[in-house]
Amino acid sequence: MMAKQVQQDQLYIGIDGGGTKCRATIYSKQHGVLGTGLGGPANPLHGLERTLESIMVSTQLALQDAGLRVEQVHELNAGMGLAGVNLPALYDKIMQWDHPFQQMFLTTDLHTACIGAHEGQDGAVIITGTGSCGFSIVSGRSVNYGGHGFAQGDIGSGAWMGLEAIKAVLLDLDGLGKATAMSDMFKSHFNTLTAMGIAEQMAGQPSSGYAKLARFVFNAAEQEDEVALAIVTQGADYISRLAKRLLENQPPRLSMIGGLAEPLNKWLDPDIAARVELPKQPPEMGAIYFAIQNVEQNLEKAN
Amino acid sequence: MMAKQVQQDQLYIGIDGGGTKCRATIYSKQHGVLGTGLGGPANPLHGLERTLESIMVSTQLALQDAGLRVEQVHELNAGMGLAGVNLPALYDKIMQWDHPFQQMFLTTDLHTACIGAHEGQDGAVIITGTGSCGFSIVSGRSVNYGGHGFAQGDIGSGAWMGLEAIKAVLLDLDGLGKATAMSDMFKSHFNTLTAMGIAEQMAGQPSSGYAKLARFVFNAAEQEDEVALAIVTQGADYISRLAKRLLENQPPRLSMIGGLAEPLNKWLDPDIAARVELPKQPPEMGAIYFAIQNVEQNLEKAN
Repeated sequence: MMAKQVQQDQLYIGIDGGGTKCRATIYSKQHGVLGTGLGGPANPLHGLERTLESIMVSTQLALQDAGLRVEQVHELNAGMGLAGVNLPALYDKIMQWDHPFQQMFLTTDLHTACIGAHEGQDGAVIITGTGSCGFSIVSGRSVNYGGHGFAQGDIGSGAWMGLEAIKAVLLDLDGLGKATAMSDMFKSHFNTLTAMGIAEQMAGQPSSGYAKLARFVFNAAEQEDEVALAIVTQGADYISRLAKRLLENQPPRLSMIGGLAEPLNKWLDPDIAARVELPKQPPEMGAIYFAIQNVEQNLEKAN
Repeated sequence: MMAKQVQQDQLYIGIDGGGTKCRATIYSKQHGVLGTGLGGPANPLHGLERTLESIMVSTQLALQDAGLRVEQVHELNAGMGLAGVNLPALYDKIMQWDHPFQQMFLTTDLHTACIGAHEGQDGAVIITGTGSCGFSIVSGRSVNYGGHGFAQGDIGSGAWMGLEAIKAVLLDLDGLGKATAMSDMFKSHFNTLTAMGIAEQMAGQPSSGYAKLARFVFNAAEQEDEVALAIVTQGADYISRLAKRLLENQPPRLSMIGGLAEPLNKWLDPDIAARVELPKQPPEMGAIYFAIQNVEQNLEKAN
C-alpha cells in the first residue's frame, strides 16, 4: 500500500551530462515532462566539482521551469548519465557525493543515450559530439567501444577534429607541414599571425575548447582543402568502423547522437549512413527511464 | 671599483627546467662549478606552483652540495631556462615571482640549451625529451620551430610517442585498429586486460606520464612491430624536417639534446644524423652563461 502510493506521486529528473553542457528534465508518469533546465559543462573527467555544479544549476532551473519549490529537489528520483563513469574509480567518487535527491541512479551518458534513442528497447548508439564513443544493448548484454577520452581516444569527435586541425596549422605555420586553408581561418579566428600566438591561446584548453574548432575543419573540407579532407575522412572512417563493430552484435536499430552526427553523416561509409535512424527520445529522457526502471525494480524487491 | 669587486665575488646559479626534472648548478668564475641539485618537474605550462617549488628544491640541494649556507640564496645570480616562456603571458607571470635570488634572468629552455651546446657561439639545437622543439642562434638572430606543447605539438617527443602508442593500443583492444605488440606490453605494464583499464590509468596524465611510455614504442619498433615502426618513423621524419628547417639558417653546429636524442638518431634522415654533434655543455651551464652575459652587460651599462 505504502509502496504503491509512493510510486504514484513519484517525481523523476533525468540528467544528461556532456563536455559542453548539462541537460535536466523533470518528469512524472502522470503528467509527463514538467520542466527542463540547462547547465554548463558536466564531464567529470574534466573536473568533478564543475560537473556537480552544472548538475545542480540544471536541476534548479528545471525545478523553476516546472513550477516546483527549491526544497522539492529532495523528492526527485535522479537518473544520471555522465561521461567517464565506466571508470570504476570515478563512478565510486560520484556515488559518494552528498547529493540532494531522494535517490540517485548513475550510469554512463552512453547508456542513457541508448535507452533514450530506442525508448528502452534494444539498439546501438554512436555519440559524436565533444567526444566520441559507441554503445549497444542487445538481449540484456551491453558493450561499448571507444570513449577513452581526449586526447588518447575520441577519434572522429569534435575535440579530436579541432586538435588535428590545430596540429596541422602549427606545422603549416612553422613551414614543416602541408599548406592548409585552415591556417588563414585560424589566424583570423585567434587574431594572431603566428603559430605561437595560436599555441598560447590553446595551451591548457579542455576538449570543449578544441571541439569549438571542428566547424572550421568541415568548412575547409567543403572547400576541398586537402588537409581538412584528410582529417574529416579519417574521423568518418573511424566512426564507420565503430558502427560496423556495433552492428556485429545485431542491434535492431542504430542511432547517431551529438553535434557532429549531422555534419559527419555524408562522410560515412554509405552502407552505414543508410542504417542510421533518428533517436526516438533524447538522452535526458533515457536517464528518466533508467531512474524509473531502478525505482520500480527496487519496489518489486521490497514487496 | 665597487662594480669590479662585486663581479669578482659573483655567484651564479643556472637552472634548467623540464617536464620531468629541474637541474641547478652553482658556479663562480674563479672556482667553476661549486655544486649541483636536482628537483622535480619544472614545466610552467603544466603548473606554475610546482615549477617554482622544483626550482627551489634544486636550488637548495645545489647550495647544500656547494657547502653554502641557505641564506646565500640571496647572493645567487640566477639564469633560468624554462619551457613555455616564449608565451609572453607566462614570461610575465614568472618574472612577477617574488624570487629569493639577487637577480633573475629568464629565457626559454631552448635558448639556454643552445647557449650551452655551443658554449655561447652560434648554433642550432633540437630538444627531444618529454617535448620537442628546435632553436637556432645565428649572427644574433634566433628562430624557433615547434615547441607548441602537448598534445597539439611536440611531434617526435617522448610524450607524443607515448600518446600515439596509447591511441594505437586502445584501437587494437577495441578491435578497431591494427594489431600491435604494444598491446600486450601495455596490458602487462598497466596490469589490466582492457582498453578501459588503460584509459582509466592514463586519464588526466600530464605529458611526462605519456613520455614514460616512449621506451615501449622503441622496443616494439626494434621487434619490427608495424604500428610502432610507423610511430617512430613519423616522429623521426618530423625531427629530420625540423633539422632541415634549422639548417636553412646556416648554423655552424647542430646538436640534439634530451632523452630521445640517442634512441631517435638511427631513425633520422642519414644526412641529418651525420650533421648532429654532441653538445659541448649541458643546458644548465647555458643558463649560467646567460646570467653572466646579462650581469656583465648590466655592469657595462652602469659604468
